[in-house]
Amino acid sequence: MCGIVGASNVEESSVVISNLLFSLQHRGEEAAGMVVMDDDGQVHERKGVGWVEKVFGNGLVQDLPGKSGIGHVRYSTTGASSERNVQPIKAEFSRFGHIAIAHNGDLVGSLGIKSQVGGYFQTGTDTELFFRFIHRSHPPNLEKRILDSAVQVRGSYAAVVLAQHTLYALVDPWGFRPLTFGKFGQGYIVSSEGYDFSRLGISPIRDVRPGEMVVFEPGKEPRSEIIPNTNPPHTPCVLELIYFSSSASRVFGKDVDAVRIELGRALAREEKSDGAEDIDWVIGVPDSGSVAAGGYALERGVPLMPGLFRNHYVGRTFIKPSQRQREMDARAKLMPLPTIIRGKRLAVVDDSIIRGTVINSIVHMLYDAGAREVHVRIPSPMVSYPCLYGIDMKTEGEQIANQCGRDVEKIRGQIGCNSLRYISIEGMLKAASQGQEGATFCSACFDGNYPLI
Amino acid sequence: MCGIVGASNVEESSVVISNLLFSLQHRGEEAAGMVVMDDDGQVHERKGVGWVEKVFGNGLVQDLPGKSGIGHVRYSTTGASSERNVQPIKAEFSRFGHIAIAHNGDLVGSLGIKSQVGGYFQTGTDTELFFRFIHRSHPPNLEKRILDSAVQVRGSYAAVVLAQHTLYALVDPWGFRPLTFGKFGQGYIVSSEGYDFSRLGISPIRDVRPGEMVVFEPGKEPRSEIIPNTNPPHTPCVLELIYFSSSASRVFGKDVDAVRIELGRALAREEKSDGAEDIDWVIGVPDSGSVAAGGYALERGVPLMPGLFRNHYVGRTFIKPSQRQREMDARAKLMPLPTIIRGKRLAVVDDSIIRGTVINSIVHMLYDAGAREVHVRIPSPMVSYPCLYGIDMKTEGEQIANQCGRDVEKIRGQIGCNSLRYISIEGMLKAASQGQEGATFCSACFDGNYPLI
Amino acid sequence: MCGIVGASNVEESSVVISNLLFSLQHRGEEAAGMVVMDDDGQVHERKGVGWVEKVFGNGLVQDLPGKSGIGHVRYSTTGASSERNVQPIKAEFSRFGHIAIAHNGDLVGSLGIKSQVGGYFQTGTDTELFFRFIHRSHPPNLEKRILDSAVQVRGSYAAVVLAQHTLYALVDPWGFRPLTFGKFGQGYIVSSEGYDFSRLGISPIRDVRPGEMVVFEPGKEPRSEIIPNTNPPHTPCVLELIYFSSSASRVFGKDVDAVRIELGRALAREEKSDGAEDIDWVIGVPDSGSVAAGGYALERGVPLMPGLFRNHYVGRTFIKPSQRQREMDARAKLMPLPTIIRGKRLAVVDDSIIRGTVINSIVHMLYDAGAREVHVRIPSPMVSYPCLYGIDMKTEGEQIANQCGRDVEKIRGQIGCNSLRYISIEGMLKAASQGQEGATFCSACFDGNYPLI
Amino acid sequence: MCGIVGASNVEESSVVISNLLFSLQHRGEEAAGMVVMDDDGQVHERKGVGWVEKVFGNGLVQDLPGKSGIGHVRYSTTGASSERNVQPIKAEFSRFGHIAIAHNGDLVGSLGIKSQVGGYFQTGTDTELFFRFIHRSHPPNLEKRILDSAVQVRGSYAAVVLAQHTLYALVDPWGFRPLTFGKFGQGYIVSSEGYDFSRLGISPIRDVRPGEMVVFEPGKEPRSEIIPNTNPPHTPCVLELIYFSSSASRVFGKDVDAVRIELGRALAREEKSDGAEDIDWVIGVPDSGSVAAGGYALERGVPLMPGLFRNHYVGRTFIKPSQRQREMDARAKLMPLPTIIRGKRLAVVDDSIIRGTVINSIVHMLYDAGAREVHVRIPSPMVSYPCLYGIDMKTEGEQIANQCGRDVEKIRGQIGCNSLRYISIEGMLKAASQGQEGATFCSACFDGNYPLI
Repeated sequence: MCGIVGASNVEESSVVISNLLFSLQHRGEEAAGMVVMDDDGQVHERKGVGWVEKVFGNGLVQDLPGKSGIGHVRYSTTGASSERNVQPIKAEFSRFGHIAIAHNGDLVGSLGIKSQVGGYFQTGTDTELFFRFIHRSHPPNLEKRILDSAVQVRGSYAAVVLAQHTLYALVDPWGFRPLTFGKFGQGYIVSSEGYDFSRLGISPIRDVRPGEMVVFEPGKEPRSEIIPNTNPPHTPCVLELIYFSSSASRVFGKDVDAVRIELGRALAREEKSDGAEDIDWVIGVPDSGSVAAGGYALERGVPLMPGLFRNHYVGRTFIKPSQRQREMDARAKLMPLPTIIRGKRLAVVDDSIIRGTVINSIVHMLYDAGAREVHVRIPSPMVSYPCLYGIDMKTEGEQIANQCGRDVEKIRGQIGCNSLRYISIEGMLKAASQGQEGATFCSACFDGNYPLI
Repeated sequence: MCGIVGASNVEESSVVISNLLFSLQHRGEEAAGMVVMDDDGQVHERKGVGWVEKVFGNGLVQDLPGKSGIGHVRYSTTGASSERNVQPIKAEFSRFGHIAIAHNGDLVGSLGIKSQVGGYFQTGTDTELFFRFIHRSHPPNLEKRILDSAVQVRGSYAAVVLAQHTLYALVDPWGFRPLTFGKFGQGYIVSSEGYDFSRLGISPIRDVRPGEMVVFEPGKEPRSEIIPNTNPPHTPCVLELIYFSSSASRVFGKDVDAVRIELGRALAREEKSDGAEDIDWVIGVPDSGSVAAGGYALERGVPLMPGLFRNHYVGRTFIKPSQRQREMDARAKLMPLPTIIRGKRLAVVDDSIIRGTVINSIVHMLYDAGAREVHVRIPSPMVSYPCLYGIDMKTEGEQIANQCGRDVEKIRGQIGCNSLRYISIEGMLKAASQGQEGATFCSACFDGNYPLI
Repeated sequence: MCGIVGASNVEESSVVISNLLFSLQHRGEEAAGMVVMDDDGQVHERKGVGWVEKVFGNGLVQDLPGKSGIGHVRYSTTGASSERNVQPIKAEFSRFGHIAIAHNGDLVGSLGIKSQVGGYFQTGTDTELFFRFIHRSHPPNLEKRILDSAVQVRGSYAAVVLAQHTLYALVDPWGFRPLTFGKFGQGYIVSSEGYDFSRLGISPIRDVRPGEMVVFEPGKEPRSEIIPNTNPPHTPCVLELIYFSSSASRVFGKDVDAVRIELGRALAREEKSDGAEDIDWVIGVPDSGSVAAGGYALERGVPLMPGLFRNHYVGRTFIKPSQRQREMDARAKLMPLPTIIRGKRLAVVDDSIIRGTVINSIVHMLYDAGAREVHVRIPSPMVSYPCLYGIDMKTEGEQIANQCGRDVEKIRGQIGCNSLRYISIEGMLKAASQGQEGATFCSACFDGNYPLI
Repeated sequence: MCGIVGASNVEESSVVISNLLFSLQHRGEEAAGMVVMDDDGQVHERKGVGWVEKVFGNGLVQDLPGKSGIGHVRYSTTGASSERNVQPIKAEFSRFGHIAIAHNGDLVGSLGIKSQVGGYFQTGTDTELFFRFIHRSHPPNLEKRILDSAVQVRGSYAAVVLAQHTLYALVDPWGFRPLTFGKFGQGYIVSSEGYDFSRLGISPIRDVRPGEMVVFEPGKEPRSEIIPNTNPPHTPCVLELIYFSSSASRVFGKDVDAVRIELGRALAREEKSDGAEDIDWVIGVPDSGSVAAGGYALERGVPLMPGLFRNHYVGRTFIKPSQRQREMDARAKLMPLPTIIRGKRLAVVDDSIIRGTVINSIVHMLYDAGAREVHVRIPSPMVSYPCLYGIDMKTEGEQIANQCGRDVEKIRGQIGCNSLRYISIEGMLKAASQGQEGATFCSACFDGNYPLI
């Protein structure tokens, strides 16, 4: 779970990149980094642990010179929090000069690949494999070598590569992760999501297609190259639509908010055909459950009400925990609104349940605030398999679904709510398709069907 | 616009105070401070410009010793941003030892009073007047002197005073500002708002009443004293209910969310009797307009939909502005959701309009996102007078209502929306009363009826 | 022990003040502050705990507007380390507008005076008494009131006052503390010491005289006023010459390095007439003992050698102490040079002995490095009385001289050196006089003769 | 110019390493870093730009777990200031697990070697070549591979390698750079210099010899291995003795202070045989010229006097420079003492002259302070060749010697002093030998005789 951006032939590229990463902050709050290349082919970087504003704020990047650059925000993942592993990473090749890469996704079996290719790795990232394959590849031409590597790394990725003043934007042949680009002044911008393009003055062009590498050379039109491969079926990650991307984005050719509304609606339709529980209000869990809650409310014909508020001040590094502090922190993130909750039968819509601890805490908070009944509604299916393609689904053993033998009633019991419903896999897939014929997705975390192992 | 807290006979009072202030962060983001008193009557302070986490975080207050203390968060107000003016303020009296005070409100005509009492003032705060009056007062007893001062300062205040191991909590005779208290372990907690009391393990007791001073002496029950006065009518600030307090709070004996829902409902009722415009969705402006939007939607029978998202990462000190940066920042705070907005007739509910710049920017953002019609609905009356009691309403000349001759149609023109409706003053007051007979409020910013000049 | 500066009618006065305070850093490392006054009579401040570079560095003061200002550095003194007590302090008078004061010295019996004048004090500084006396004074004219206050505060001070665009520089009638001024561009500069004036482009004029107040009004020549008083004998603090001022300064009309060389010489002369110990090298304790060591070596005819080096990296906030850290820190400040020390009979010259802990540690370090004999030579008399005028001499009980009954041999035993010699009080006074007829000093810390109680 | 340390089998090794690096701060102020290895073979690092206290202070390293570790401080060198290049560097080998290296020196022709071995490099350091050669080496055993690499990297180095819980300490066969080790508790400590060992509780053992690799395995005695090579003559860098190492250190078997005193003496002897100029005082330029000044004064029979003081507060990041600031900064580092300088004929001893800008500024400062004559004495020969082995001697064109055609009189003219004398190369080498028969040194910067190209 990460976000990546690139800029080609853009004035003050470091400032533009910091703004783009700021718009992708929801894709990763743990670390941020950028590398820019100046007119002499020298690279300049700024990386750090923390939010975009901390790493790049206070003028820390304004002086990085260069019209091209790439950037990255990283979600917290275990074992990778050291500063060493912040992307982009870079290397100086004796044949090609400086190359920098940022990548969103997971290279399948990268530990095995690493031990197979042998030697040593200087970062803890999968991304370093790109360098190795670029080095090992035979074509004399760098571009061909990047394409070659894109085959060999084998896994889910959207990636940006900066080399020899050229920006390369790649998506793996399965198309697991989104990547889109637009025009900005005389140059081009690439980003994991484009919802903020118009605010930033960027004219959207199109998405990078699965198995495509778009090449941005200064002064030329973007050029499309094909990653040579067996041409697998496209399996974009359905979770990008369900909760990972911004609701304001258009991803995989679909408006994310439209998908989420339809997920809520479809969940409600399935429920109605199955004896829906009576409820007074629909409550969305901010922010990720809010849009689906809107769709669910529409279909149920029950009012959506803002029953939970998110405290905007949580999520920062607050006072170092004494014992007292820890006790006080537990429930600081959400606040229930008393009149809306008290005495009411509530349908509470959250995007998904992984370990179940968050929804459990919400359910208790609502009962404490006087809710008469709490009916949890999840517009995604039961998560019971790990993700191999870059999203932190925890291990199978940590997933509440597996702890409860994938038994909805047992899960409901653990969560402590009056009723619990998930959308069906079919319903979810249909909603995600938005009426597009033959749309396919990776839904391995729900059904265990891994497109690539 | 500030928040104040107090702690009496509480272990690790500095940590507790920092948590309480964190819960009041919405009442003031500009500065924070606390003063605690140790067993020897010595005072220790930590004050600074910035958010609670910045000023108190990273263990900065954990070592401040003492079981009693007071704290303050301050909203940005002109000319007062220097560190000198951060509250609480304190002084050492030859007769009474150290006294510290924090105060939320505005002392009416304080400049005049200051020049009348003469001499010199060492801070830029109104609050320093309390010290002067305590000093000038005649009773030998400190408690009596505080009561005396509470009369003479003349204005709107909720205040906490720390002296001789005792915590005093006062509200002016008009009761403009809220103040409430509860039990915490062996001691007591005072706060501007109590919505977070249960999360923090505090048992709510009751509000401090207008014209009352509650005295908290360690090891004793709280004791109530009366601020001697002509006993004016109670005029709690109606804006606390409309937008200043948290929607999760109970203020002036009313659930804030209930008031806001009713404000939305009443606005819709008034509209319906006046030929309501046809709309497809109701959209609340997060976060302040969301709850009233819920009530408005209920009454209109039109679905509430989450059409605008707040970017949680905005509001921090971001990258220092180059020209490019400034252009990019302008609209970073809210994001429209495309499918919900596109082609729709929207009622957009925001809490109030002061200068009109924010709502103007929202309206244009919605049109840009494809809205067919944008109907702005304000569940508070037209603001056309300044506040003398502590809320930053800008000068009359800055208020859009006055710039447009208090003409709704002209305001609508400037904002650029299809229609604009405010609730009536009567409707607002009735909603705020929540059915309580004879409830009175200060609504001077709407009607110019100042209870105290 | 503090340093003060002032600037009148100087462009970018905040930058100039920060540079001046940087040159006075040896007079106080604990805190620093400045107040500048802009063309409208508004004051702007920047104060903080820590070194000048920390408080003012990174552009923190460059934007403070105003051509006049005052500044202060403070030495660590007990109970005064809170940010509240950092000078300059300021107040807004209803009659005179903003007044700021910084002061170096001690007001004798200030606690008594404070309780006598009664009321309350908002800082922990003595300096606040100036505000009180200015307020209580009767003349309508501010200048006269400042003169009046200068009498009433009673104590040792060099002070700068900023009010109504005028800078006032005062020295108490006894002349305990130094203060000097010079011309800088169109304006004037005041400082505790002027050794750095030429580097900074300031043309020295003269010292402020005991009992004098020099008035700097923009566009006018400096004007001299007399502090009305009984005209006591001048008693400049001899310690300023012995160790407190910079060796590069000229203080009380004497070159400080010349005094220190003569102190060393005189000590050697006294020793020679008393059967001097045989030594191989003279070693100065850097930095404070180095210059006197030079004089001592000259008179003894024994080479001065650099046997101890000061580690320039000590004195900063280093790694927070774990137990291991503390053990390692103890002797980090000085390093002995092995060849110079080994097998040699050393005369070690340090400026003074207060508690004896530092010299004890040095003596042991030298023995550990192989010194054959260590003869400690102190070019100041035995310190056995506290200072009432602003220098931290510890309490009498903490002084090693008093712990040992003022017995040199006992002190030598505690320090553990082969021999110990102090200069006589007469010898010291004669050296400090530099041949000036009738020169008098305050030497109360040595002889208990307090000029003012 | 760098410093390196290592710790094997030491409790709280991160704290110990930070203290050791603090003692080596004079070898590099620009950056600092450490890597420690925990019981599981995982590595933890902390690196940063700035002084040791900034990078490791405030508890930043106390929690790094592990009993073995290595550390590095780096001197400012062009083009290498990015955080990427801070040492130690580390890599994970598929065969050997994590390996970390820190290295002091310069690999001769490393750019050529890099391009020869081809591929890519991920840092800008020479040090990364060790990883490449370890990887390319054929022996199955890591220790043998490190020895192999030590031959192939070809250059000047003292290095520490951390791998598989073992610490390796290496010095190149020429022995350019010092490295010494001692016992600490149950474990061992390695450091570039050992002057601080006794203060830190470390018992010195001996130096690592040229061409030796000492192996520290927990629980075993240190073991000595030989770097296979043609066994070149030993050529320790004479500049380590002249100015780079601490005067308190013992380096290459010689007390550094003894060498420096003898350099001063020898310079004086050469001068005396050549018609020495008459002088009143000898002045050392602190700190690097002080010890040689002592020797020079002894031999001349002229008193050494402390005529220049170093401002301890300079060298930190001070106020960001406005134009005014820059003008003021120029001479802030040293202060002349007026009485000692005025009217005197001075011999001023500084360690060396590279570009001549510093000594020029000192000479003018002394004339400005009233010196009658200024005679510059340099206890090292004329620097007229670049260093290939790790010391920043600037390019030949930047050296004043080459700008003046290696003509002493021309250099004197540029510096502006009354006379200028360097020691002869023979005199210098003899002083550095300290009577040791057949001692050889690298003195390439003086004579162009490069032991290794």
